[in-house]
Amino acid sequence: MKAALLNRPGEIITGEVPDAVIELPTDAVVRVVAAGVCGTDVRAYRGLPGPVSGPWCGHEFVGVVEDVGTAVETVRVGDLVVAPFMFSDGTCARCARGVPTSCMAGGMWSVQAGGAQAEAIRVPLADGTLVHVPMDEHDERVPAVLTLADVMPTGYHAVRTAGPVAGATVAVVGDGAVGLCAVLAARRAGAERVLLLGHHEGRLRIGKGFGATEVVTARGPEGHAQVLDATGGIGADLVVEAVGEQGALDTAMAVCADGGVISLVGGPHGAIDMAACFLRNVRLTGGLAPARAYLPELLADVVAGELDPSPVFELTVPLDAADGGYRAMVDRQATKVLVEP
Amino acid sequence: MKAALLNRPGEIITGEVPDAVIELPTDAVVRVVAAGVCGTDVRAYRGLPGPVSGPWCGHEFVGVVEDVGTAVETVRVGDLVVAPFMFSDGTCARCARGVPTSCMAGGMWSVQAGGAQAEAIRVPLADGTLVHVPMDEHDERVPAVLTLADVMPTGYHAVRTAGPVAGATVAVVGDGAVGLCAVLAARRAGAERVLLLGHHEGRLRIGKGFGATEVVTARGPEGHAQVLDATGGIGADLVVEAVGEQGALDTAMAVCADGGVISLVGGPHGAIDMAACFLRNVRLTGGLAPARAYLPELLADVVAGELDPSPVFELTVPLDAADGGYRAMVDRQATKVLVEP
Repeated sequence: MKAALLNRPGEIITGEVPDAVIELPTDAVVRVVAAGVCGTDVRAYRGLPGPVSGPWCGHEFVGVVEDVGTAVETVRVGDLVVAPFMFSDGTCARCARGVPTSCMAGGMWSVQAGGAQAEAIRVPLADGTLVHVPMDEHDERVPAVLTLADVMPTGYHAVRTAGPVAGATVAVVGDGAVGLCAVLAARRAGAERVLLLGHHEGRLRIGKGFGATEVVTARGPEGHAQVLDATGGIGADLVVEAVGEQGALDTAMAVCADGGVISLVGGPHGAIDMAACFLRNVRLTGGLAPARAYLPELLADVVAGELDPSPVFELTVPLDAADGGYRAMVDRQATKVLVEP
Repeated sequence: MKAALLNRPGEIITGEVPDAVIELPTDAVVRVVAAGVCGTDVRAYRGLPGPVSGPWCGHEFVGVVEDVGTAVETVRVGDLVVAPFMFSDGTCARCARGVPTSCMAGGMWSVQAGGAQAEAIRVPLADGTLVHVPMDEHDERVPAVLTLADVMPTGYHAVRTAGPVAGATVAVVGDGAVGLCAVLAARRAGAERVLLLGHHEGRLRIGKGFGATEVVTARGPEGHAQVLDATGGIGADLVVEAVGEQGALDTAMAVCADGGVISLVGGPHGAIDMAACFLRNVRLTGGLAPARAYLPELLADVVAGELDPSPVFELTVPLDAADGGYRAMVDRQATKVLVEP
């Protein structure tokens, strides 16, 4: 079968690899209908450290079950399914408490079993991982479902772990797909104002479509001052940090109200001043999103037509042209790219 | 008037100082009925850095209003009052959002205006700071009220900022007065199990009286293993870190469940592995307790006889013998000391 492979930083090749097959009774093999390119894939493409080490790429997919192991009970051949970016058994004590990302049997990124940017993927722990999608593979909502593999539950996690936000002022630092999904999640949760901090016109436009009430494009201290001015000098009740770099962490601290919350969903690649958090009563929430735990409720909303994060996909490329998709993300030509095998 | 003064590390002298007087229209002068010795006072006595720099000591008091400035409206001469450990105006935007510790007009520790371990104290921003106590100064509940100046609201803050804990398993790291008050707060909030980690028999006994269901006295990895064993290998839903030193922070990380919460109320004098928090979905709450915000509700419970944290006071000393009180705390002879002018 064909698969996108990270040959070296800056080069994705689409080549032939052995077919995905059942290896364990708990596996499924899924023919990929649509795969996403994630910021973590792009980190690897840029040669930066992260959870994706290559050569396999992609951990977001919607597909059709092609084969199941003898122990698989919850999905059948022919089902359209979506998977979160990590595998989990769904039965261990950590899955039971809502953190399948810490699953005692799984907790693996799908790239550890094979990439999703391929014609097919082997899915370990299929019963715990896969979620049946009640539509056919040509449904126009498939891109919206694909966001549920990672970016939408991540944005949702940022908001949900912060506690109630009805009526609150939320600042979202970063206009990537996760930040945009956090805008959507914040507004769905009743936030009165959502200030989106970013620098890309197209992404900010998507953010406005998702409900951002204000955008802040100035960088550094000037941007911080704009948020403080807009909030009576107090700062935002909740700051979603959806970048992970030091500058964004500093911005989050600068624009968060004392007594507020910073939700870290960018993957912190920097330091946070814990003494300042303590003195200012700034709580830290977020974390690696337990996407599987949120999938059923978010999927129900997509199916009902009440949730559509699909505008984050600004470019669709065939599997053979995956490299071009990555390049478009690096060059900020597309917020997020959908790969079609 | 007489006051306890930190002459040098390890030596409190009780000496004559100028009488506390009204300096600003918003001041009150309070004759001190009972003052507490706090862990932060003891830090200064031990020569460690912290918010208390001396020579003034004490930021916890119950007393009788002796004089008020012309702008003071909410308390009258003769009222019994209690104050939180920091002054605040009660009207600024930060006070309004429940963080009087970040008050834009105050946010000062009482030791910056004069110590509470004295015959009297000048209280700036009296309207925002003082809370009228509906009892007389000889009431047996005065020590319970005195805990509301700092340690009880701090324990309460640890639990409250963590979100609902009904039915939860809570581990409290540290058997000082704050840890013990956190035990009390956790049980009042409906925690099913409270594991108290400490090393002092007398304090652990108080903790059991406050509702701790289990005590763990082993240190380091052995203690961590005991908590994990007691929680099916998962760890506690909420860990209250009531020490602040690196070893306690490490213990908090070791015994917290993935997807759980660590509430920091010890004042973090160490580092926390933010990447591990992110990957394990461990949220960080707590902070410098906004005691003034909680005082009315906690006071109502003390008045109603439903809350009595006073067992944390294991020794009462006269003002002249304040040094002996400090020494008793350093030597672990008393969990907490009450000073009577």
